Amino acid sequence: MDKLYVIKIGGNVIDDEFALNALIKQFAALEGKKILVHGGGKLATRLAEKMDIPQQLVDGRRITDAETLKIVTMVYAGLINKTIVAKLQSCGCNAVGLSGADGDLVNAHKRQHPTMDFGYVGDVDRINAAFVTTLLEQPLALVISPITHDAKGQLLNTNADTIAQEIAKAMSGSYETTLIYTFEKEGVLLDVNEPSSVIPKIGRAYYKELKEPVNGESRIFAGMIPKLDNAFVAIDKGVKEVLIGKAEKLQELIAGTAGTTILND
Amino acid sequence: MDKLYVIKIGGNVIDDEFALNALIKQFAALEGKKILVHGGGKLATRLAEKMDIPQQLVDGRRITDAETLKIVTMVYAGLINKTIVAKLQSCGCNAVGLSGADGDLVNAHKRQHPTMDFGYVGDVDRINAAFVTTLLEQPLALVISPITHDAKGQLLNTNADTIAQEIAKAMSGSYETTLIYTFEKEGVLLDVNEPSSVIPKIGRAYYKELKEPVNGESRIFAGMIPKLDNAFVAIDKGVKEVLIGKAEKLQELIAGTAGTTILND
Repeated sequence: MDKLYVIKIGGNVIDDEFALNALIKQFAALEGKKILVHGGGKLATRLAEKMDIPQQLVDGRRITDAETLKIVTMVYAGLINKTIVAKLQSCGCNAVGLSGADGDLVNAHKRQHPTMDFGYVGDVDRINAAFVTTLLEQPLALVISPITHDAKGQLLNTNADTIAQEIAKAMSGSYETTLIYTFEKEGVLLDVNEPSSVIPKIGRAYYKELKEPVNGESRIFAGMIPKLDNAFVAIDKGVKEVLIGKAEKLQELIAGTAGTTILND
Repeated sequence: MDKLYVIKIGGNVIDDEFALNALIKQFAALEGKKILVHGGGKLATRLAEKMDIPQQLVDGRRITDAETLKIVTMVYAGLINKTIVAKLQSCGCNAVGLSGADGDLVNAHKRQHPTMDFGYVGDVDRINAAFVTTLLEQPLALVISPITHDAKGQLLNTNADTIAQEIAKAMSGSYETTLIYTFEKEGVLLDVNEPSSVIPKIGRAYYKELKEPVNGESRIFAGMIPKLDNAFVAIDKGVKEVLIGKAEKLQELIAGTAGTTILND
């Protein structure tokens, strides 16, 4: 099977032009099939402020009302997506930018919750793996924004981490798939304040150990636990490995000389 | 050769939800290969106003400064493009929305002018016909926004009429191509104030006659002349016919029972 890299760009990376450009250059140079999934960073929030559209956050989650959906569609599927594609083209990497509505790439439904209405937030139902394969085999690199659709004409705002994971899972039957989460940190840190404390490899047994509370606290930063739980879910569903680390070190992440590798052992 | 329809949606149609929905339904139902090219209507201007970005018009042309380029990329390549794609999906038409940067679809250069700087306005150099063919043969319908790129990382704002024409010309070697300009009027009118005065067919000889001044004025509305000149250029370059008419009457335009047909005779 051919290799496939599915790379999520963290929100902070989108806001940092230096980091973003470094990532784009390394992505362009990467051999093999490749997909970049991005969110929106702070740009959508800033645009909403300029337009006097109040942003509601409930439990740290943005409520996507109709006006906010327009903003994220403009910023994610328009400005950020096309800016990244144009930069890739300038590096000699022929890329195509897509939302989940394009080619019926990501089918989703409006989130159902017993007590809360998240607005136009989508949970993923299905990835159109055949369409992704057709484009990858051209060959084309894909740049995917986290705007999905419900097949009834409604666009939906969807979590970009989830989209990256669902795509990696869906493609793992056709490609030897590596899922990469890039962000502003060196990797999974034993001590969140100490960049040199990056854990190079985490298997299942070690992860269980890391999550065991010591003096009432798990040994790794609580914020990393959902990411790691998701990483193991991806591995259970056929993804070969999950890499977590700094965007500017994409090549080293893939070479295994930086960041954290999550493995099935 | 298979038939291909390249359909430009006029700006006023984008602003009129009823007309847009009617066009989208008829486009979805259309048999054969098909491409929709759209501009942005008044949405980009309204967004610029909300964000206090002054819009400069010189001789009726919008100057695209860096902030305005961001706005048109958000509105054209993001909001309008993805809204149309999601609507098409809901009509059972599998469509993919693209800018000119995607798949290197439309290569352009920043407009050169001896005395004026139009800003980030692009003039088309090349259409990637092989990429268009690959997608059409899936089969997929294409929805194209008029944001192009210069292959050096710069996005450019480009005239949507021109993009429709360039694509129709580039594809006419591979498909029997009909180029359709839809707008809010019934077709080319002999009397601009009289919707029933639509001219059903215009060939070269008749066009020459129509342009001849009578009492110092051409017999057709001066605003139509550049569109008609362009139509004959397209026909010279291999496009089979050009149709001009009302967006809500797409099926009748194609059937030849409404609008104006520009022919090579």
